[in-house]
Amino acid sequence: MMKVNAELFLLTYGAIVAQIIEDKKDIKEANETLLKYGMAIGNRLVDDFLSKTDLETGVTGKPEAITQAIAKAGFKAYLGLTADAKFIKGDEMEDGIEPSREHKDRAIIEFPGKADRGKMCPVSAFVDIPEHLRGLQYWGIIVGVMKGALKMLDIPVEIEVTKDSCVGDTKTEFTIYFDKMLTHTYEGRKIE
Amino acid sequence: MMKVNAELFLLTYGAIVAQIIEDKKDIKEANETLLKYGMAIGNRLVDDFLSKTDLETGVTGKPEAITQAIAKAGFKAYLGLTADAKFIKGDEMEDGIEPSREHKDRAIIEFPGKADRGKMCPVSAFVDIPEHLRGLQYWGIIVGVMKGALKMLDIPVEIEVTKDSCVGDTKTEFTIYFDKMLTHTYEGRKIE
Repeated sequence: MMKVNAELFLLTYGAIVAQIIEDKKDIKEANETLLKYGMAIGNRLVDDFLSKTDLETGVTGKPEAITQAIAKAGFKAYLGLTADAKFIKGDEMEDGIEPSREHKDRAIIEFPGKADRGKMCPVSAFVDIPEHLRGLQYWGIIVGVMKGALKMLDIPVEIEVTKDSCVGDTKTEFTIYFDKMLTHTYEGRKIE
Repeated sequence: MMKVNAELFLLTYGAIVAQIIEDKKDIKEANETLLKYGMAIGNRLVDDFLSKTDLETGVTGKPEAITQAIAKAGFKAYLGLTADAKFIKGDEMEDGIEPSREHKDRAIIEFPGKADRGKMCPVSAFVDIPEHLRGLQYWGIIVGVMKGALKMLDIPVEIEVTKDSCVGDTKTEFTIYFDKMLTHTYEGRKIE
C-alpha cells in the first residue's frame, strides 16, 4: 500500500482548512464545507476501505464490527494512528421506534493528543484553534470521510467530536451514533 | 517516520484544488494560490527535509547534490514516488552576469504517469484536467513546496512542469532552473 509522509499530509490538511476559512463567510459555513469535502472523499475511499477489512455484506451491518473496522482499517491504515475503539450497545427499543441519541448504539474512537509526540497525529499535531475561530471543526474532513464512507455502505451515522486536542483536551475522541438500530435489519434481512 | 495512506492524501489534495478553483475568479489566481500554499508548506517542511538528507551548509549549495536530495529525500520520502533525477550543468558565464534560462544549471525530475498503476502517483493518479480548466497547474502545491523549501535554504529557483500526466503526457517531469550560479558562491564563500 502506497504511503505518503505524515507531515506533508498534515500541512496540506491545514492548507485546505485555511483556504476554507478565508473563503467562507462564517465558521458555520466553513464547518459545512469541511464536512462536505470529507464526505466526498469518504464516498471515493469506501471500496479501498472494504478491501482492507474483513467486513462483508450482512456482517457489515454489525456495529461492533464496524467500530473495529473504523479504528483499525480506518485510523490505522489511513492515518497511521493507533486508536482505541469501544462499542456501546444502545437500549433495546420497540420495533419501528427510532431511539434518541443517548439510547443509540454508539462507537467511541479515541487516540492520543499532542502530548505523545512519538505518535504525532497527522492531522492536528501542531493545531491550536485560536479564540476568534472558536467553534471551527478542524476535524471536519475526517468526520466527513467516516460519515461519507459509512453512508455508501447504507449505514447512516451522526458523529460528534467529544474530546478535541485542538482545543486543549489531552485526547481526541469521536463518538459515532448509529442512526438506526442496525442490529435489526440490514439489506432487508435480520442479521442478529 | 509516520506515514499516511496515499489515496487519502490524493483525495485531500484534490479537495483543496477543487476548493481553490471554486473560490478564485480565474485559473491564474487559482494557480497563484496553489503555489502560495505550497510555498508555505515548503517553509515548514525544510527542517524535516534537511534531517532526511546528508546536505550540509556549504554542500547545500551544490546543485548536483540538491537535485539528488529533491528526488530521493523529496519525492521518495514525502510522496513515496520513485523519481529519476538528472542534473544539467549550465554554461559558464562571466562573474556577475545572470544567465538566461536556457543557460542555467537545471535539474530534471521525472516520474511515471498513470500507466504504471503499481506506482500510483499520490497526487495525480486519477486526474485529467478538463478543457474548461486548461492551464490549471494541478501540481502547483508540489511545485510550491520545492520552491518554498529551497528558498529557505537561500536557493532561489524557477520550476516548470515540462511534462504533465494530468494533460495526457505519459510521464510527469519538473525542470528546476537554479536562479543564480550557485557553484560560484554560497554563504559568502567559494564552494567549488
